[in-house]
Amino acid sequence: MEVRDCLISAPGKAILHGEHAVVHGKVALAVSLNLRTYLKLKARSDGKVCINLPNIDTFVCWELSELKQLTSSKLQRLDAELVKRLRKFIGVTNENLDSSASAILAFLYIYLSLFGSGDMPSLTVSVWSELPTGAGLGSSAAYSVCLAAAFLCATGNIPTPLKEWEQTGRWCQEDLELINSWAFQGEKIIHGNPSGVDNALLLENHPLIIRVPLLRILLTNTKVPRSTKVLVARVKDKINKFPSVMIPVLDSVDAISCTCEKVLTEMTCEPITGDHYNILEELIDINQHHLNVIGVGHPSLDMLCQVTAARGLHSKLTGAGGGGCGITLLRPGAGTMKDLRDCGYDCWETSIGGPGVQQHFPSSVKEEIMEVLNRY
Amino acid sequence: MEVRDCLISAPGKAILHGEHAVVHGKVALAVSLNLRTYLKLKARSDGKVCINLPNIDTFVCWELSELKQLTSSKLQRLDAELVKRLRKFIGVTNENLDSSASAILAFLYIYLSLFGSGDMPSLTVSVWSELPTGAGLGSSAAYSVCLAAAFLCATGNIPTPLKEWEQTGRWCQEDLELINSWAFQGEKIIHGNPSGVDNALLLENHPLIIRVPLLRILLTNTKVPRSTKVLVARVKDKINKFPSVMIPVLDSVDAISCTCEKVLTEMTCEPITGDHYNILEELIDINQHHLNVIGVGHPSLDMLCQVTAARGLHSKLTGAGGGGCGITLLRPGAGTMKDLRDCGYDCWETSIGGPGVQQHFPSSVKEEIMEVLNRY
Repeated sequence: MEVRDCLISAPGKAILHGEHAVVHGKVALAVSLNLRTYLKLKARSDGKVCINLPNIDTFVCWELSELKQLTSSKLQRLDAELVKRLRKFIGVTNENLDSSASAILAFLYIYLSLFGSGDMPSLTVSVWSELPTGAGLGSSAAYSVCLAAAFLCATGNIPTPLKEWEQTGRWCQEDLELINSWAFQGEKIIHGNPSGVDNALLLENHPLIIRVPLLRILLTNTKVPRSTKVLVARVKDKINKFPSVMIPVLDSVDAISCTCEKVLTEMTCEPITGDHYNILEELIDINQHHLNVIGVGHPSLDMLCQVTAARGLHSKLTGAGGGGCGITLLRPGAGTMKDLRDCGYDCWETSIGGPGVQQHFPSSVKEEIMEVLNRY
Repeated sequence: MEVRDCLISAPGKAILHGEHAVVHGKVALAVSLNLRTYLKLKARSDGKVCINLPNIDTFVCWELSELKQLTSSKLQRLDAELVKRLRKFIGVTNENLDSSASAILAFLYIYLSLFGSGDMPSLTVSVWSELPTGAGLGSSAAYSVCLAAAFLCATGNIPTPLKEWEQTGRWCQEDLELINSWAFQGEKIIHGNPSGVDNALLLENHPLIIRVPLLRILLTNTKVPRSTKVLVARVKDKINKFPSVMIPVLDSVDAISCTCEKVLTEMTCEPITGDHYNILEELIDINQHHLNVIGVGHPSLDMLCQVTAARGLHSKLTGAGGGGCGITLLRPGAGTMKDLRDCGYDCWETSIGGPGVQQHFPSSVKEEIMEVLNRY
């Protein structure tokens, strides 16, 4: 079997409002983040299957004959037996996988599940991501979505959406749901038992995704390491310590998510005004205070807020907090933020509300990304 | 009639938690502030009645014969006719009184109400206050309480509580209530229509006052001027704009006041531990965030919080916010705060939970205060 080459990308995700509150049954507002993961699938004719993940220094090739011994029938639910065989195959024994091992495992699992019952193609998959890994920005979900879309396309389970006269192509709702279900298998392997939110977000028009106007943001990684588990536990402790003080704060966060969703929906229907931005900024400030109240702030995030406030911009943490990443809303015309790089932070000027998973003509992808992907 | 000399002091007040929320029906926690107003009453024999208020550069003397023309019968409710006559007498025509005119008006009103129906004494009242005026620290209430206590003592309506073997003397509950009712008349003249909270607070054992352990605090005046009226309106606007976001925040503030009250009461009954301080500090931090959320923060107050946080201390605004004063809890052994004076702020290291109105032997009053009072 020979597959057709293809080029696919999927966005990251950012939580606008409701991180932590979502753990306690409140609404969270997550949006697609236009830092993307790009996957190039290229047919080979030498009977090898290769994966190149330069972000995490992972480059592996197998003989098709090796992989054929691991084949399984197609399964929609995670085939625990196959995962076990794959772990043994790649020589992983402990429970906690590093990012390289879990990425390989997800790749092999989806590859074998989709091709294993028939003619297995010789191919190379190369992936390059603009997303920092492990920063709560959905990099592993974007990877799984790209893998699922590429292999489903290669097997003919979903069509190639690219029209000759267009730079990019997107799938219909039904196809997106199929991509999502397979991507979710990859996520389960990488994360254990994810909520499924990350994938769903990457597939536009899913009920969990609200229509969001394309808004410029600054994403800042303070590079302060933190443990999501520890932070979630800290919030829980604080709620137990001061329930009457904290539960109303979660209610307020819930109302912030709902109010923000309403404003964003309005912004997709009517001309965007300064008032829309004023409200979005006020909600960002309020929620950042609430996140400090529930105990997930950090001096590095205070610094982010101060530096951007000095330019009239409004920031909040996004994700787990306690360091990690912050998001700053950029009004049209807002300048760049050299000051933040002076703090030692990584910054990306990007946008939210961009397209979900899509197929590309190579010419529609930034040159420097194609340059990385074409190396392999 | 000749009166006996006396020396009286009353404390200021500070709001620990619940400023602004109290406007919306929530609990506020106000405590006595050990920055005090001192009043010295001295008999004269020259038929003059004099008042000296060096804090506000006010020094006035009248002939008893002038005042006798203004006499009224004793009244517990504010005698609008007398106030009208007094305004005319001191030559005030517009509605908004300056602090000098309102202090004189309150003095004359209480003097004439209490002495007017009988033999009017010739005397000098001199007042010196450690409290900044107009900073929301109850300076006018402390003044009214001192006036009422001094004149009620002079008329024999309440006893002289000073025992020979004690430095200070305090009145019983019944006498305190009489002082309070007269002080309230003075407050009404000064403020128009006060809530009565300020006075009640100055009189210990009143239902509105909780038992508070003596706690060291730092009181900081940012000297940023603000209008309470404008700030109250701003909060109301924000609640109307985002009701579902803001109403839970007020509920949380209410719970902070109740939780703090509970902890303070515990601290009066059991040995004070570091855990008590930890909780008080956490509540201060949370409420300061909430006050920012409801829109009454100010960069000068952020600076206060930052400078004190750098020393491991926790601060919040007290009163109207938008500048004005902040309060910092000082743990035992906490040092002085030169850094704040470097910001251009006024700082007082004082305490909360100190005694209410009391009578003094001169030797129990700080020398520098006696020196000011004895000048007149």
